[in-house]
Amino acid sequence: MLRGMKFKIALVQLRVSVQKDANLLRARSQVLEAARHGANVVVLPECFNSPYGTAHFPAYAEPLAGPTCTALSQIAKDAGVHLIGGSFPELGEGGKLFNTSTVWDPAGTRIGIHRKIHLFDIEVPNGIRFKESDALSAGNEMTMISTPFGRIGLGICYDLRFPELAMCAARADCVLMVYPGAFNMTTGPLHWELLLRARALDNQMFVAACSPARVEDEAKNGGYVAYGHSSVVDPMGKVIATTDGEEGIVYADVDTDAIFAARQAIPVTKQRRFDVYPDISKGP
Amino acid sequence: MLRGMKFKIALVQLRVSVQKDANLLRARSQVLEAARHGANVVVLPECFNSPYGTAHFPAYAEPLAGPTCTALSQIAKDAGVHLIGGSFPELGEGGKLFNTSTVWDPAGTRIGIHRKIHLFDIEVPNGIRFKESDALSAGNEMTMISTPFGRIGLGICYDLRFPELAMCAARADCVLMVYPGAFNMTTGPLHWELLLRARALDNQMFVAACSPARVEDEAKNGGYVAYGHSSVVDPMGKVIATTDGEEGIVYADVDTDAIFAARQAIPVTKQRRFDVYPDISKGP
Repeated sequence: MLRGMKFKIALVQLRVSVQKDANLLRARSQVLEAARHGANVVVLPECFNSPYGTAHFPAYAEPLAGPTCTALSQIAKDAGVHLIGGSFPELGEGGKLFNTSTVWDPAGTRIGIHRKIHLFDIEVPNGIRFKESDALSAGNEMTMISTPFGRIGLGICYDLRFPELAMCAARADCVLMVYPGAFNMTTGPLHWELLLRARALDNQMFVAACSPARVEDEAKNGGYVAYGHSSVVDPMGKVIATTDGEEGIVYADVDTDAIFAARQAIPVTKQRRFDVYPDISKGP
Repeated sequence: MLRGMKFKIALVQLRVSVQKDANLLRARSQVLEAARHGANVVVLPECFNSPYGTAHFPAYAEPLAGPTCTALSQIAKDAGVHLIGGSFPELGEGGKLFNTSTVWDPAGTRIGIHRKIHLFDIEVPNGIRFKESDALSAGNEMTMISTPFGRIGLGICYDLRFPELAMCAARADCVLMVYPGAFNMTTGPLHWELLLRARALDNQMFVAACSPARVEDEAKNGGYVAYGHSSVVDPMGKVIATTDGEEGIVYADVDTDAIFAARQAIPVTKQRRFDVYPDISKGP
């Protein structure tokens, strides 16, 4: 990890509609907007090109060699940014569907891919019920991407509830954990900020999460209302940039010196007792 | 873990002074008070019989077979409670000092002991500086105690910053993690509640932390101002009982059904991907 590495991250809290073409165009204009504001790393939300719902995934799914990835490559190139392309329903080998995030460099080259490891199967009494595994298959790998700004760990939404990913990423020298995610109106107010802050503080790294905007209109949201509140948290667990449910772009300045400062002040990274419990980052 | 197991926990946020005898007497009266209010499990704060500071530990330290443990045994018996006796500076074998918590059943029998595993060596710029390892040795074991109410995991203060202890305890069927702890006026406002809530939510267990009261008078606090804010958090990460810096007793009703409900609603306990990352609870 490099000292004094500074970059600007932008979270595009996109108003996702049921029209894929319109979503891709809107994503393009927002990423270009973020680049004009000096962003070096731009993040799109989970399911940025499709409504979020198991009933929708088969219809919206497409292979990696499809129009969505073609568009993302071009957007990254035209914007001249590192683009973490939220996620989209991927049609994989054997007809399997995945919730997949792709990462692009400013040359338009794909430099990373993450398939959601933990599928969102949940049933809160009097709250949300959702079973992602009805339609999707799970990925089987943790993802860390090397960029000129440092390594970036990647998880998608429900992956955030499993502390292991951020623990492994931080111990593998990642400066930032990025979660495209669409929490809902039950789990969002309860846990979104808490989980982001916990991951950041426990691992003394930056954490960024990018949600779709909140769309209340059922004709337009495909049946799922995202919480919004895209946020960036610093290595001391402080929220340094956030928003409400509206469409917009959240910007934050990341400076790796803040990681060194946090780890010097509260040196847990050197004080762990791997003689008493295992080091989670040492392979399964 | 038993369904529908209910018990009342009391956190005695004691006003600790520099007089050991007075601290023991005050602890006794407060634990008896908690028992009169129906508490089954009573917790004392970190360093409940001594000011918190490396300069004080040698003078206040005593062996397990000393007046403090004699008093704790008698208090548990007279109150008829399970008593988690905060911590005190223990004079161990070979003259080594430990920050040690002892646990007592209503017969006055010691049923558990935890020596702080992670020593508090910290230096926040323009904030707190403290080096516990100047005076203390570290414990080498995680602690889980069987009680009629279920298993209870135990950590002391800075141990809270290491997520592994609560992860291991929850996976070993503990219903509750207890941390006697004395965060300070720098780290308390920044991280106390966040860490407690994170441990509770990530592991879907109850978490309780008991601090000394805040004593601002330097002649009485031995040079360290504790944050207070003793709290109980439920398995959904919600603070269900807390307080400010004043002396007092914090009560909460623990019902293990809340653990089952949380784990049913958000079934992360069944969804972990130990094929992708190791299970931290499977030994070092």
